[in-house]
Amino acid sequence: MKSAYQSIKEACYEANMQLPQLGLVLFTFGNASVADRSAGVFAIKPSGVPYAMLKPEDIVIVDFEAVVVEGNKRPSSDTKTHAVLYKYWENVGGIVHTHSTYATAWAQTQLDIPILGTTHADHLTVDVPCAPPMDDAMIKGNYEHETGFQIMTDFKRRNYSYEEVEMILVGNHAPFTWGKSVEKAVYNSAVLEEVARMAYLSVTIRPDVPRLKDALIQKHYQRKHGTDAYYGQ
Amino acid sequence: MKSAYQSIKEACYEANMQLPQLGLVLFTFGNASVADRSAGVFAIKPSGVPYAMLKPEDIVIVDFEAVVVEGNKRPSSDTKTHAVLYKYWENVGGIVHTHSTYATAWAQTQLDIPILGTTHADHLTVDVPCAPPMDDAMIKGNYEHETGFQIMTDFKRRNYSYEEVEMILVGNHAPFTWGKSVEKAVYNSAVLEEVARMAYLSVTIRPDVPRLKDALIQKHYQRKHGTDAYYGQ
Amino acid sequence: MKSAYQSIKEACYEANMQLPQLGLVLFTFGNASVADRSAGVFAIKPSGVPYAMLKPEDIVIVDFEAVVVEGNKRPSSDTKTHAVLYKYWENVGGIVHTHSTYATAWAQTQLDIPILGTTHADHLTVDVPCAPPMDDAMIKGNYEHETGFQIMTDFKRRNYSYEEVEMILVGNHAPFTWGKSVEKAVYNSAVLEEVARMAYLSVTIRPDVPRLKDALIQKHYQRKHGTDAYYGQ
Amino acid sequence: MKSAYQSIKEACYEANMQLPQLGLVLFTFGNASVADRSAGVFAIKPSGVPYAMLKPEDIVIVDFEAVVVEGNKRPSSDTKTHAVLYKYWENVGGIVHTHSTYATAWAQTQLDIPILGTTHADHLTVDVPCAPPMDDAMIKGNYEHETGFQIMTDFKRRNYSYEEVEMILVGNHAPFTWGKSVEKAVYNSAVLEEVARMAYLSVTIRPDVPRLKDALIQKHYQRKHGTDAYYGQ
Repeated sequence: MKSAYQSIKEACYEANMQLPQLGLVLFTFGNASVADRSAGVFAIKPSGVPYAMLKPEDIVIVDFEAVVVEGNKRPSSDTKTHAVLYKYWENVGGIVHTHSTYATAWAQTQLDIPILGTTHADHLTVDVPCAPPMDDAMIKGNYEHETGFQIMTDFKRRNYSYEEVEMILVGNHAPFTWGKSVEKAVYNSAVLEEVARMAYLSVTIRPDVPRLKDALIQKHYQRKHGTDAYYGQ
Repeated sequence: MKSAYQSIKEACYEANMQLPQLGLVLFTFGNASVADRSAGVFAIKPSGVPYAMLKPEDIVIVDFEAVVVEGNKRPSSDTKTHAVLYKYWENVGGIVHTHSTYATAWAQTQLDIPILGTTHADHLTVDVPCAPPMDDAMIKGNYEHETGFQIMTDFKRRNYSYEEVEMILVGNHAPFTWGKSVEKAVYNSAVLEEVARMAYLSVTIRPDVPRLKDALIQKHYQRKHGTDAYYGQ
Repeated sequence: MKSAYQSIKEACYEANMQLPQLGLVLFTFGNASVADRSAGVFAIKPSGVPYAMLKPEDIVIVDFEAVVVEGNKRPSSDTKTHAVLYKYWENVGGIVHTHSTYATAWAQTQLDIPILGTTHADHLTVDVPCAPPMDDAMIKGNYEHETGFQIMTDFKRRNYSYEEVEMILVGNHAPFTWGKSVEKAVYNSAVLEEVARMAYLSVTIRPDVPRLKDALIQKHYQRKHGTDAYYGQ
Repeated sequence: MKSAYQSIKEACYEANMQLPQLGLVLFTFGNASVADRSAGVFAIKPSGVPYAMLKPEDIVIVDFEAVVVEGNKRPSSDTKTHAVLYKYWENVGGIVHTHSTYATAWAQTQLDIPILGTTHADHLTVDVPCAPPMDDAMIKGNYEHETGFQIMTDFKRRNYSYEEVEMILVGNHAPFTWGKSVEKAVYNSAVLEEVARMAYLSVTIRPDVPRLKDALIQKHYQRKHGTDAYYGQ
């Protein structure tokens, strides 16, 4: 008998399998999830299962409190972080977490990735935010749950909208990206890695590299995402 | 019934498909075009179509004013830049735009790529020019059209010939390359990326690395492109 | 007739073949070994045989004094180092030596790889140790044997347990990793290379990058390896 | 009818085809040659022919004065450099020239590649020499012929033996490697690229990285190449 969640299980499986193909994960260092808003659940990768051995039926279904609803395996150790974001950010349809090399290296520096060019501005109008590491009590407490709040708190502090900025670095840890669909979240992870790589190269050529001027930021973002967008079909 | 532009459509398709194979584009971040001078048109990639899904019949035909002549899809958002260059640079047969990693990182620094070795001098005798970012009025105006003029203005200011220097970085944006044929334009994009990468490595090993001496610049360029060239068959 | 050591020969062959697949070795620059504790021997790659030509029957069996027990080929020139580690570290089941690019570059600097993020803390709670180069008498003496002692001496000096820290850089030389099984040792080599690469990027972005805070180190290590670990199946 | 030089033509073809497979050449940026000492000739890649289109019958046979003996195509533009080295270095059986990325980046800096680790010492006991750029008269004269002399002059100045040191960077240009056989020359090109890459990483982590101590240099070189060598079968 088919699972009532067959559709998000398969979408979740496909999204997870894209991560190693895009060069974004080594071994088990990442996970993708897909929400079914009407059912109030999401599908997520099981913990510690290598991509080469992952099967669609291994995908775990959990609710927005991170309680397992269906599945024989333990869900990703990062499940609570996904759950918090789905619970409070109601238009998120998919979330991806990786330890992709350049984005993670920036996260280790605790620095935002500065907006230096149109490749970046095609996707967001601000530096890629890096949330500071949590205080010790949060780390020792409900860690993965707190990671979700750390992300949301950073967005509130900066007054960013999760619908406009679909990525963050968690300081000393690694990136999380999201989107209306999991396909967009996967895309955002790959874009973030490339933007992180280009910024790495630019700041090591020229440490005082200037930030992209505002007119270019607005132009590139608006032509792709604005009300008069003319990019794409 | 076959299109009257079948030949340039296929050449354009082939050129675009080479870009991901050469590692020069991620997702949809690039486009190649091919001119038919006798017909006064060029073929260009449709906007936002992933390479994996691109088909020859998707290619759009536009004239040198960037008006669509044939095709069911919207042409690349960079079409006006291509159109301006074809209109004013009469011996250009193909143009390629990418966001290749190292070339784009240099563009983000707003620095020319210094000529440091014979790999560079085999292809051009000057630093790879980086045009400054446009002023705000140009950006807010007819942006992609102005990008073409920004490129041409930079060549005039430097007194460069587009037939000798077949590449430029648009500051804060990314590279454009061209050639008598689109095959040459694609080749130039790959060469530019490699030259950008080597220069990156050299300046990070030795920030005061000296520019290539003039005798070597002339020797390498002339043996490949001069009247007494003896490179190739 | 089958060898009494067929099982570790095959495991050793498989482990060695993974090294080029994981991008950790060029030509013959690496070797993996597998111990059979009950028989008091280990299987190791023959010296100087390219991976493309390696066959399971080429694997050499030696005892913990590095004396050949079975095999037609000369064992790896690093055999004595493996033998010392197996002899004194009784729970080691497999050892891998590579010259993987980033780890070896750190070894050349004679610096420990600083713990900067959770990717590192998921695997060990301390900087990746770099043992100092040996003194000249040891180098001129029984070099590969002394390399094993140099590794153990460094662990004693730092008060590290080989069961908790399963990797080291030998200064000016290259990494060694180990584990309860050879699969774990191979895994550790790949993790080390990625950790070395991320640390390289972080320190070149920000030379004064801070060390990971202790609460995060403990949290990430314990959730994967502690008594209440909840990572994996 | 088969060529009298069939054997070196095929060896030359195979060696050239390995260069792109090892990631050492882009487009036509490299060439390998193979000497037949008894016939006083060598086989070399034709000029400007892409590797994807190269066929064994395209290989050109020239003598040690660089005069074509057999072949329908023009030989590599670097043929005179190969010819000089074959003429004066009588035990060289194969030569390879590439513009591999890291080695060429070092050549652009005009710096020797410092010996920093055992990966380097396994192959040579000195820094990889970088010959200075030639003076203008030599460049404007018989350039490729002079390049061969520049290499030999640098070896004489440093008192290096071409049989012990089988590689050089030509300042501002790119590497040349050689060996008793062309297989060894190809191997040396790949080793040089990896050594160049590791040294790049080490000097950018730690600009004052110390040179490898002499005892380690001698130990690693001698165990592979000395009279009591015990590396390999």
